[in-house]
Amino acid sequence: MAKLFVVGTGPGNADLLTPKARTAIAASTDLVAYGLYLDLLGELCEGKTHHDLPLGEEIGRARLALDLASAGKDTALISSGDIGIYAMATLVFELLDQQLQGKENHPEWLDVEIEVVPGISAMQAGSSRIGAMLGHDFCTISLSDLLTPWETIDKRIHSAGAGDFVVSFYNPVSKKRDWQLNHARDVLLQYRPASTPVLLGRQLTREDESIRIITLGELDAKDVDMFTLVSVGNSESKHILNGSKEWVYTPRGYSKKL
Amino acid sequence: MAKLFVVGTGPGNADLLTPKARTAIAASTDLVAYGLYLDLLGELCEGKTHHDLPLGEEIGRARLALDLASAGKDTALISSGDIGIYAMATLVFELLDQQLQGKENHPEWLDVEIEVVPGISAMQAGSSRIGAMLGHDFCTISLSDLLTPWETIDKRIHSAGAGDFVVSFYNPVSKKRDWQLNHARDVLLQYRPASTPVLLGRQLTREDESIRIITLGELDAKDVDMFTLVSVGNSESKHILNGSKEWVYTPRGYSKKL
Repeated sequence: MAKLFVVGTGPGNADLLTPKARTAIAASTDLVAYGLYLDLLGELCEGKTHHDLPLGEEIGRARLALDLASAGKDTALISSGDIGIYAMATLVFELLDQQLQGKENHPEWLDVEIEVVPGISAMQAGSSRIGAMLGHDFCTISLSDLLTPWETIDKRIHSAGAGDFVVSFYNPVSKKRDWQLNHARDVLLQYRPASTPVLLGRQLTREDESIRIITLGELDAKDVDMFTLVSVGNSESKHILNGSKEWVYTPRGYSKKL
Repeated sequence: MAKLFVVGTGPGNADLLTPKARTAIAASTDLVAYGLYLDLLGELCEGKTHHDLPLGEEIGRARLALDLASAGKDTALISSGDIGIYAMATLVFELLDQQLQGKENHPEWLDVEIEVVPGISAMQAGSSRIGAMLGHDFCTISLSDLLTPWETIDKRIHSAGAGDFVVSFYNPVSKKRDWQLNHARDVLLQYRPASTPVLLGRQLTREDESIRIITLGELDAKDVDMFTLVSVGNSESKHILNGSKEWVYTPRGYSKKL
C-alpha cells in the first residue's frame, strides 16, 4: 500500500517551503492540487503525474488522493499555506471517518498510510512582513458560509471581539460573497477602536505581493479579494513609523517592565 | 549598519526549518538565543558567536540583539516555533517603539534593518501529527500571567468557549504555576462536552516526542509540563480509530454534502 502525503507548501515563496514538504513531494509519483500551486513549485513537480481539479472540487480532490494511494501510487495532496488550516487535510479525515462508519464503500482507503506536513500559514507570513502582529493571543475565522452556518460565524466574530483577540479572517470575500467582511468590521468596532491597525496582505511572499496597513474604521470589502489576508489587531496593537518604515506589533506587556 | 534577522526555527526537527530561516542564520555572524535552540540546529550554528542568556531574560536578549546589529554585526535573534507568536519578535518592536517615544537612549537602534522570518508553530506540528485538529476556526491563549492580568486571560478562555473555537494553550504550566490549566479546563467544560478530544504534545518533532490524545474531562495539569502543547478540540472535533492508528480532525462540514 502506498503513502499519502498531505502537504502544505507555505504562502508561495519557495524560501518558506519546508524541507519536509519538499521531501514528501519528491517521494511522490502523483500530485493532486489546484494547478496554480504546482506552478509556484516549479521544477520540484516536473516528471510527476499532475491531477488538477478546479477550485471548488475539494471533496473530489481528497477522494482522488485517497484513491490514487489505495491503488499503490505514492501521492501528495497539496495546498498552499498550512494544509491543516482551513484546507484539504481535514477533508481526508472526514472521508476516512465516513468509511469507518460504513457510509462510503472504499475499505481500501483504510490501508493508506497518511502523513500530514504542516506549512507556514498566510497569517504568519503577513504578521512577519509587518513586524509582530500575532505577538499575543489570536484567533482565525473563516468568513465563508458555504459549509458553516452564518450564525456560527457571527457568534465567533462577537467572541473574538469580546475576548480582544487579534483576528485573522480567511476567505474574507469571494466573487459571490462580499457583505460578510463589512459586517465583521462593524461587529469588531463594537469592541475595539476604529484606529486599530489592520493588515491587508495580498499574494503574500509572491512576486506580486502587496501589503497595506490601514485602520479598522477604513476596512472595506471593496479593497479585498480572495487572495487577500485580513488581520485585525487587538485593542493594544500598535502601528509605528520609523522613518519610511512602518511596523505593527501586538505587545505582550514587557514595556511595563522596561 | 548591519541586519537583524528575527528567526523562528520551527518546533525542533530540522525538517521543519525553512530555507529562509537557514539562510538568515547562515548570513549572521552573531546568534542570540537560548542555548537549547542552538543545540537543535547543530552545525548550522558552528563558527558563529553565540550569545546565550538564560530563560526569563527575554528583554535582555532583545536588547542585546539590537545592540549587536547597531554595532555592525549581522545578527540572528532566534527562537523555536514561530518567533512572531508569543516570542521574541514583538519585544524587538516594543523596544523600538520605546526608543521612538524617547523612553530609551539608543537612537542607533532605529538604523537597524530588521527582517522577521516566521516558523512552524507548535500547534501546527501538533495538529499535523494527529491529523487535522486545526481544520476549522481556532485560537491560541497563553496561560502565563507574568505579563498579562489573569482577568484578561480568564475572559479570553470564556470567549474561546462561547465562540466554540479549537483552543491551543501556550505556556500551559510552569514550575511556579499550575492551577491555571485546570481552571481553563473547567471553563471550557461549561461550553463543550467532557468527551471533547485534547492533544498533549510534548517535545513535538524532537527525538523524545510524546503524543497523547485524551478527553477534556481527563485533562489535568499534573500530566503537563512547560514543553507540552495542549490543544482542545471544538464541540465538533472527532477522535477516530483506524485499527491501531488514531486521528483527530475538526470538520469544516463537508460530510453534510458527501
